[in-house]
Amino acid sequence: MQDLSDLVTPSVQHGLDLAGIFVFAISGALLAVRKNFDVFGIAVLASVTALGGGIFRDVMIGAVPPAAFTELGYFVTPLFAAALVFFLHPEVERINGAVNVFDAAGLGLFCVTGTVKAYEYGLGLTASAALGLATAVGGGVLRDVLANEVPSLLRWDRDLYAVPAMVGAGIVVLCIRFDALSPLTSGLAVITAFALRLLAIGRHWRAPRAWNRRSAVSERPEGQM
Amino acid sequence: MQDLSDLVTPSVQHGLDLAGIFVFAISGALLAVRKNFDVFGIAVLASVTALGGGIFRDVMIGAVPPAAFTELGYFVTPLFAAALVFFLHPEVERINGAVNVFDAAGLGLFCVTGTVKAYEYGLGLTASAALGLATAVGGGVLRDVLANEVPSLLRWDRDLYAVPAMVGAGIVVLCIRFDALSPLTSGLAVITAFALRLLAIGRHWRAPRAWNRRSAVSERPEGQM
Amino acid sequence: MQDLSDLVTPSVQHGLDLAGIFVFAISGALLAVRKNFDVFGIAVLASVTALGGGIFRDVMIGAVPPAAFTELGYFVTPLFAAALVFFLHPEVERINGAVNVFDAAGLGLFCVTGTVKAYEYGLGLTASAALGLATAVGGGVLRDVLANEVPSLLRWDRDLYAVPAMVGAGIVVLCIRFDALSPLTSGLAVITAFALRLLAIGRHWRAPRAWNRRSAVSERPEGQM
Repeated sequence: MQDLSDLVTPSVQHGLDLAGIFVFAISGALLAVRKNFDVFGIAVLASVTALGGGIFRDVMIGAVPPAAFTELGYFVTPLFAAALVFFLHPEVERINGAVNVFDAAGLGLFCVTGTVKAYEYGLGLTASAALGLATAVGGGVLRDVLANEVPSLLRWDRDLYAVPAMVGAGIVVLCIRFDALSPLTSGLAVITAFALRLLAIGRHWRAPRAWNRRSAVSERPEGQM
Repeated sequence: MQDLSDLVTPSVQHGLDLAGIFVFAISGALLAVRKNFDVFGIAVLASVTALGGGIFRDVMIGAVPPAAFTELGYFVTPLFAAALVFFLHPEVERINGAVNVFDAAGLGLFCVTGTVKAYEYGLGLTASAALGLATAVGGGVLRDVLANEVPSLLRWDRDLYAVPAMVGAGIVVLCIRFDALSPLTSGLAVITAFALRLLAIGRHWRAPRAWNRRSAVSERPEGQM
Repeated sequence: MQDLSDLVTPSVQHGLDLAGIFVFAISGALLAVRKNFDVFGIAVLASVTALGGGIFRDVMIGAVPPAAFTELGYFVTPLFAAALVFFLHPEVERINGAVNVFDAAGLGLFCVTGTVKAYEYGLGLTASAALGLATAVGGGVLRDVLANEVPSLLRWDRDLYAVPAMVGAGIVVLCIRFDALSPLTSGLAVITAFALRLLAIGRHWRAPRAWNRRSAVSERPEGQM
């Protein structure tokens, strides 16, 4: 996740990475509290949410052991977030709006760094963008699977989450294609994805479901869960 | 997934691969519609179903990045299938029988190509057959896990699914063992698995459950484990 | 999983490995019976439970193909356990206490061998301990995810499971740090984790949940599921 180090000041990049990991970990820990998990469940869900997307990407591109296991800071940050939620969770839930903002920042950052890292490991542009998207959303999917819930990523009744990450990854890929990747353009990609996600939350943008949806569905509508 | 290229005409093999990916993607997209997912959920579930088994096999044998990320056609086909289901899903459901036929074809093909690819990467015969089976059924398992359902592979009330793939992989392994792997024999393995699966559907073949199964079981007693 | 071979007599080590795989497989097969899965579901769940943690570790450290695919004994043992449960499951359930003892032994063994193997592949001490923990608990998490249940690892109403494995992995890491890893010390680590787990079961030790837990939770308490 230090792949933009030649683009952005390494310490800035590293700090942003840790911020993304931290806020994703908060979201995992909060879900664990809501599901009534114990302190280890909170720590596990925080770590999986924060590191799952990056680990998946690293395994796919052959960058093993994944950065999550070689960089101590990546490993400790989720545990710190879990401890925070464990002791302070009513306060943390009260600042849910702030969590959304940070989570959006993590989404923007991870889709960009994920795309760049995949490209650096020799993948094509489309595959790099796909892995950037997977880096950004993968942790949340794993979080929901472990909590035995339908991933929010897939549900129609959640505000757009994948699209901002797709746009961010798409901008990066276009910049690479036209040799325009720089600290400025990658920063712009992060900010675009971040802003789009905030707009999606603020205006409750949702994605359409399949056309001609029949009202009588055999399964209980998971969307109302 | 191009591993039979020396056995079968590459273009034929590639076309069959894409056909298998396509029909698995259709099954994933249809489940997503039934679960009331939005358009991105449909695309994700289609892709995971179609590519999950192959990605798992490739990670296991060290063939990273997986073919799903390096071959554009493998990546685009599930999205095309998702779009088709999104716009036409009542029609697609009406041809459910056809989907079953194609899915059986995908099952037959993937168990054979998966076994051959694993063997080419140096695995033993038993392990190759196991990975061929995993290639064929893995995508469906991931589909069901993401949709928060018990994988149909595991459920007693579904027609035999694993056995046809096991037979197909077993034939390939026997052919390799006795130096008889050829376009003809691998084609026979595909057709055998395909036909067995169709027979299992047509005659509702099911696998036995544990003997002495007590009738009064609830799913509840898990807490007492 | 033969990494302690220079520490422990290889045949002893191998036997212990197989014992751990066997008892984990039994626990997976029993859950499959309770979930009413058919004979293939039983075999799949037994294999995933027994081999999942080790496969995850091997993929993370780049030891592909994982030992589970290269060593025939690792592959056959879960199938044997599944067959046993299939034919004898009321008897097997009656000896549930014995299963708990063996499962605790598997936990102790896997957290130690997992940590050592990760360290041998060049990971740092913290990461090695984390992977040792993942080796010990990973199979059980996969088992529960496939069975569509909340992983017992995460639930507050189960006796401590992660802590004994953490202690075992921690002892190994300390021994490595102070150059004191030997058959004796690694055996002590196994026994400590094993004994702690048995104590946790016997005295119903549980981990705390988040402080200030409000009684009115939005989600249904998963613990009572």
